[in-house]
Amino acid sequence: MSDAGLLNQLIESLRRLPGLGPKSAQRMAFHLLERDRDAGRELARVMAAAMERIGRCERCRTLTEHARCALCSSARRDPSLLCIVEQPSDIVAIEQATDYAGLYFVLGGRLSPLDGIGPEELGLDRLAARFHEPELEEAILAISPTVEGLATAHYIGELARDSRLRLSRIAHGVPLGGELEFVDGGTLAHAFAGRQGL
Amino acid sequence: MSDAGLLNQLIESLRRLPGLGPKSAQRMAFHLLERDRDAGRELARVMAAAMERIGRCERCRTLTEHARCALCSSARRDPSLLCIVEQPSDIVAIEQATDYAGLYFVLGGRLSPLDGIGPEELGLDRLAARFHEPELEEAILAISPTVEGLATAHYIGELARDSRLRLSRIAHGVPLGGELEFVDGGTLAHAFAGRQGL
Repeated sequence: MSDAGLLNQLIESLRRLPGLGPKSAQRMAFHLLERDRDAGRELARVMAAAMERIGRCERCRTLTEHARCALCSSARRDPSLLCIVEQPSDIVAIEQATDYAGLYFVLGGRLSPLDGIGPEELGLDRLAARFHEPELEEAILAISPTVEGLATAHYIGELARDSRLRLSRIAHGVPLGGELEFVDGGTLAHAFAGRQGL
Repeated sequence: MSDAGLLNQLIESLRRLPGLGPKSAQRMAFHLLERDRDAGRELARVMAAAMERIGRCERCRTLTEHARCALCSSARRDPSLLCIVEQPSDIVAIEQATDYAGLYFVLGGRLSPLDGIGPEELGLDRLAARFHEPELEEAILAISPTVEGLATAHYIGELARDSRLRLSRIAHGVPLGGELEFVDGGTLAHAFAGRQGL
């Protein structure tokens, strides 16, 4: 190991964080070493613990350090509603922005046969089993309306077909506050086709 | 600890890195947990080691994990030149932008009596001792031209007065009030070449 080894290693490790360039990583390393070693020690401790102990919820597949996540174990969530999302971060976004009070199911991606992501990788067998649980009344698809996302939604629709479940998806259209002229054509066409009576 | 405890702790710890907002910290945490646990483990390991083992060079006061840093122990650096900087990161900037091949001395700040930063905190006694080492011929002040920086430069000028040292400062092509580590390399190289006798 060279003399500047550990400092350079620290900068290189920080650069593996998404969105950090070399200047930012260097600035962070020097900031921690010169002004806030406690923050650095705390980050090292929490990071190590998180990488080892955080796994997937056995029920909804979101990230948690317990067998079952806080939402799945909560008695205050409505078990008749199930929202299907791609990523754990989608749950955070929905919890912050909406008053949805049901449960979630995390796919962990979208169907993409070319990348080797099939129904098994997304836990769709487990999702199909949940579709037949008696307390469930509505499943809401909150999947990005990309080509792969739409294919995934279609596949899940087929899974729900022989249950007496109500299946819905969040609305696709022009985002609130968006200028029509800057919205891409695909979105606009989709929003037109999906127009609703006033 | 709540259920989402460890994940939230990780996001909070990442937020203590300078320049990271809540959204970026969250994105980084999810990225590491879902796609790159090895990077997270490596960062935790290197961070812990760096916080414990990186100290100050006994000769130039820069950050190093050894008693004496790579530059101070190198036989290829010119011991007749000493560049005086505020921060270890200034050394990185100068090494990258210029062909300076002498040694360094890191003050660790600027004289600021109101903040309790006096000559002792900047190691100026050690610097004065180096001014009288026989092999030293020129000392170059590379201190940010802020009010406090200029006062610090003046104080160092007084220290060097009774030595036979040539004292210079980098040219003030560096914009007044600017921080050295954010100046572009070309300006910095220009200022280095244009250093003037004090």
